[in-house]
Amino acid sequence: MTEDNTPPSPQKSHGRLAIRVSAQPRDLMADVRVKDAWTARIITLFPEAFPGILGLSLTGKALDMGRWALDTIDLRTFGEGKHRNVDDTPAGGGAGMVLRPDVVARALDQAAIDTPADRALWPVVYLSPRGAPFTQAKARQWAGAKGLTLLCGRFEGVDQRVLDAYGIEEVSLGDFVLTGGELAAQAMLDATIRLLPGVLGNQASTEEESFSAGLLEYPQYTRPQTWEGRDIPEVLTSGNHGAVEKWRRAESERITRARRPDLWARRGQDQD
Amino acid sequence: MTEDNTPPSPQKSHGRLAIRVSAQPRDLMADVRVKDAWTARIITLFPEAFPGILGLSLTGKALDMGRWALDTIDLRTFGEGKHRNVDDTPAGGGAGMVLRPDVVARALDQAAIDTPADRALWPVVYLSPRGAPFTQAKARQWAGAKGLTLLCGRFEGVDQRVLDAYGIEEVSLGDFVLTGGELAAQAMLDATIRLLPGVLGNQASTEEESFSAGLLEYPQYTRPQTWEGRDIPEVLTSGNHGAVEKWRRAESERITRARRPDLWARRGQDQD
Repeated sequence: MTEDNTPPSPQKSHGRLAIRVSAQPRDLMADVRVKDAWTARIITLFPEAFPGILGLSLTGKALDMGRWALDTIDLRTFGEGKHRNVDDTPAGGGAGMVLRPDVVARALDQAAIDTPADRALWPVVYLSPRGAPFTQAKARQWAGAKGLTLLCGRFEGVDQRVLDAYGIEEVSLGDFVLTGGELAAQAMLDATIRLLPGVLGNQASTEEESFSAGLLEYPQYTRPQTWEGRDIPEVLTSGNHGAVEKWRRAESERITRARRPDLWARRGQDQD
Repeated sequence: MTEDNTPPSPQKSHGRLAIRVSAQPRDLMADVRVKDAWTARIITLFPEAFPGILGLSLTGKALDMGRWALDTIDLRTFGEGKHRNVDDTPAGGGAGMVLRPDVVARALDQAAIDTPADRALWPVVYLSPRGAPFTQAKARQWAGAKGLTLLCGRFEGVDQRVLDAYGIEEVSLGDFVLTGGELAAQAMLDATIRLLPGVLGNQASTEEESFSAGLLEYPQYTRPQTWEGRDIPEVLTSGNHGAVEKWRRAESERITRARRPDLWARRGQDQD
């Protein structure tokens, strides 16, 4: 791994717990990391984009309370030469620019400081439409780790050699193309952080339960009882909890079958 | 549709072209809308979250240049009573809160002012994990419209009656649960806006081309020629454009087959 620059420390942009970063490699087993706080390290050309929406609402309160921590690592500071160039033209020609392997490697080395070597405990992820689709199962997996490093691409992508050399996991937000990885990172972090202990509080999510069961959420209703001539379904105001549960389950199944035959089929396979 | 409140005008938060909003219904065919600018109207409890990342980089430059416009509509201003309540407990019980149909309807009425009634020209979308998965094809469809309205949910969702009454399209960012719809809205807008005329400039995207062909992107390489003992594949530096194209196509196919058999199979179906 290249060590020809003296990289700056990752910027501790948010969260109230201190992080100790050192350029010296240490015994990872003896590592005393950020106390209890799950940590997201984001390698990006747009550190100012974070925490963004993650700084609001539930995820923002959890950040303020130190239930998770955010380190942004500005890729630009690892650039080449006076102009800190991070990219160059694609070998073989074509539009756009590709992030250089040496520049990305220096940022990854910096992000790796004081993190467990076991990728199950600290996934290192490149956000790319070529990756495995992000799912609720992946969010649960990440929430069970100590933290993770997310590499946000821009332009036409990242030199393949650095992805290979560092054994980086590629994950895709979906089958569409974004201007960069930053929004994908924030969406995946949102899905992950809300699963961390103490973040949702007692707002236990029925949607989460539905997805865990491989079903879409049943329809919801609230006051007023009658709106524009439309009533809340009678069973929901019956006070019969068993009947409510049965109706909701049937609605979840009906909607999943109708809208997402692929989910419905996979659910069957998982249970067999 | 409820008209018991006098709604405030949508907030023109960004973009340099003026929008004329009136509470009076007008002849939509005679509508003289924002000059040329594709417009996103976002109904949200967090208007401060916009434009967020969309204000940076290519999408931010395009916003400054008036190539698209952003109207945020603060759902809170349509709330009930002194405290502007927007939500209430779910009928039938359960965790979380549900957005009230009357409150959401007033915001939708406001968002509809001066927009075409034809949903092909102006989609009205609720961001929900129960919706159809967002895809590149959907981004292209939206980019071909005049604009769109996005309703961002929070809590356990939106009363089903208002979704039914307004014939709202439900679209999902993916099979995972987010704290709210705002990040999903930004991701979908990013994918859409980069397809608007003049936004990418001459950065024609090969990834876009790959997705259009139902394939994942081939690996990219750039300088240096040799990095940590790893060379750029020889064909890419051969200067033989035909050989480069052939190699890239073969790599795209190899990667798609290996990583996304589902995409590969669908591609076959589309072509038959």
